[in-house]
Amino acid sequence: MRLVQDISEMKELALKARSSNKTVGFVPTMGYLHEGHLSLVRIAREKCGLLVVSIFVNPTQFVEGEDYDSYPRDMDLDMRLLDEESVDIAFLPGSEEMYPEDHSTSVEVEGLTSVLCGVSRPGHFRGVTTVVAKLFNIVKPHLAVFGEKDYQQAVVIKRMVRDLNMDTDIVMGPTVREEDGLALSSRNLYLNEEERNDASVLYESLLEGRRMVASGAADASEVKSVVTKMIEGKDTARLDYVSVVHPEKLVELQRIEDEAVIAVAATFGKARLIDNIRVFRKERN
Amino acid sequence: MRLVQDISEMKELALKARSSNKTVGFVPTMGYLHEGHLSLVRIAREKCGLLVVSIFVNPTQFVEGEDYDSYPRDMDLDMRLLDEESVDIAFLPGSEEMYPEDHSTSVEVEGLTSVLCGVSRPGHFRGVTTVVAKLFNIVKPHLAVFGEKDYQQAVVIKRMVRDLNMDTDIVMGPTVREEDGLALSSRNLYLNEEERNDASVLYESLLEGRRMVASGAADASEVKSVVTKMIEGKDTARLDYVSVVHPEKLVELQRIEDEAVIAVAATFGKARLIDNIRVFRKERN
Repeated sequence: MRLVQDISEMKELALKARSSNKTVGFVPTMGYLHEGHLSLVRIAREKCGLLVVSIFVNPTQFVEGEDYDSYPRDMDLDMRLLDEESVDIAFLPGSEEMYPEDHSTSVEVEGLTSVLCGVSRPGHFRGVTTVVAKLFNIVKPHLAVFGEKDYQQAVVIKRMVRDLNMDTDIVMGPTVREEDGLALSSRNLYLNEEERNDASVLYESLLEGRRMVASGAADASEVKSVVTKMIEGKDTARLDYVSVVHPEKLVELQRIEDEAVIAVAATFGKARLIDNIRVFRKERN
Repeated sequence: MRLVQDISEMKELALKARSSNKTVGFVPTMGYLHEGHLSLVRIAREKCGLLVVSIFVNPTQFVEGEDYDSYPRDMDLDMRLLDEESVDIAFLPGSEEMYPEDHSTSVEVEGLTSVLCGVSRPGHFRGVTTVVAKLFNIVKPHLAVFGEKDYQQAVVIKRMVRDLNMDTDIVMGPTVREEDGLALSSRNLYLNEEERNDASVLYESLLEGRRMVASGAADASEVKSVVTKMIEGKDTARLDYVSVVHPEKLVELQRIEDEAVIAVAATFGKARLIDNIRVFRKERN
C-alpha cells in the first residue's frame, strides 16, 4: 500500500490509473476505522482496479462546540487495517494543503440539508459536500462508497454529483452492527457502559417501527410516537429527532404510502449517534 | 463543427478526446458572439486539440430585474462564426437539462464576490461559479479561456478552480475594444447613439487613471476621484462604482504600492457596462 499525502501526487496517480483504463474506487473516511468502514472498502475493492481510501478529519464539517479536537485518531492501526484489505493508496492530505488560509469556496446542497441532522448541525453538510467535491476532483473516482448509516449524507452527495454533473457513481454500503444492533461508529468509543447498553435502543426502536409499517401502519406520527417513547425510555438518552422521510427527497411524510426511511438521532453522554432503517408497507421478500 | 446539445454526449466526447491524449480547450459563452469572444476562441484554438465553445444564457447568473429575457441571441450567426474559427464542438445545453426542477446545488466563492459587481448583483457570481463548475465537469477542459473584460469573474473562477482542486488552467484573454476604446460586449447593442458616444468615457477614464499612477500617483482616492468625475461628466452615465483593487485579492487599496486594477461599472440607458485596467506605479516596458 502506498501512502500519499501530497495532493498533486494523488492527482497524478489517479490520472495515470485512468489513462491505463483502471477503474478508480474511493472510500473517503475520517479514520479510526472499524468494520463499518472496512465493509465499504471491500465493496469498492471488488469493483475497482485502483482503490483509494482517504483519511482526513475534515474540520469544516464539525460545527462549533462539536468534537473536532477530540475525534479519535489511530493512524498506525488504520494503516494496518487498510493494508490487510489490499487498498492500493491511503490518501492522507494535510489540512493546511486542503484549506490554505484564503480558501473561500464552498459547495452547498439546499433543501436536503435543512432537515434531519441539518437542523442541529448547521453548516455540517456544507463542510461535507465541499470536502467531498475537493476529494473527488483529486482522486477522480469512477465509484465511491458511502455508508448507509449516514443516510442523509449519502443522499446529499448523490444530489451534488447529479447537480454538478460529476462522473462518480455513488454506492451505498449497508450498515454494519454490533451483536445487539448498535450501528458501528467511531463515536461509540465515547460511551460508558450504561450509555453503551442504552444506545442499542436506537436500532431496537427502528426495528419496531419497521414492524409497525410492515404490518400496515401508514400514519407516520403513530410510528414516530412509538419510536420516540422507546428511545426516551432510556435514562442516558437525549433524543434529537425521530423522522419518517421520503427515501430520496428526505421530506417528512405524514402518510407512508409505499416505502420510507425512519431516521433517528440521539445523544448518549458525549456521543451523538444516528441510525436509520428503510421500511416498506408491503412486506417484500 | 459538431453541434452537441446533450450533456451525456458532450461528456463522452470529452472523455474520448482525453483518452486519446488530446488537449481539451474550452470557451464558455452566453452567445451573441463578437470579436471579444472570438479572440478567446483563437487563444484556445492555438493551444488545444479539441476545442469546445459553449453557448448557454445561464439564468442563475441574472439577478432579479436584469435582462435575462431580453439578452440578445443569434444562434445562426454564432454557429457560422464558430465554424469559421475551426471550433470542433459547439455545446448548446438546454436549461431544462442543466437545471432540472429539483436542482439544489450551488458553488460559492466568498469574499472575492462581495466586492465590485458583487455589491449590485447579489447572487450573480454564485450563478457563474455554479454553471462553470457544471460545464467544467461536463467538458473536462485542460484549459479554459475567460475575457479580461470580466476581470472579477476570471479571478473568482481561478479561486474556485484552486479551492476545489480542479484540473483546468484558467487563461485570461485581453479585452478587445472598438476604435474609441469601448470594450466589446453583447450589451453594447442596447446603447442608442448618445449613450454609445458617452460609453467610451469608461476606457478614457481608465487610461487617465493609468497615466496618473504611472507618473507616481499612489493615493487611490485621488485616482478614483478623477475617474469618477470623468464618467459622471457624461449626461447618460449612471455610475455604479470606481474601485482600485489588489489584482488577486480584489480588496480596495488605499495606497497603490506596485500595481493594481482600476475597475469601473456604469449604466448607460439599459446597458450596464464594466471595464478595467491593470496599472503599475513604475512604467514597465
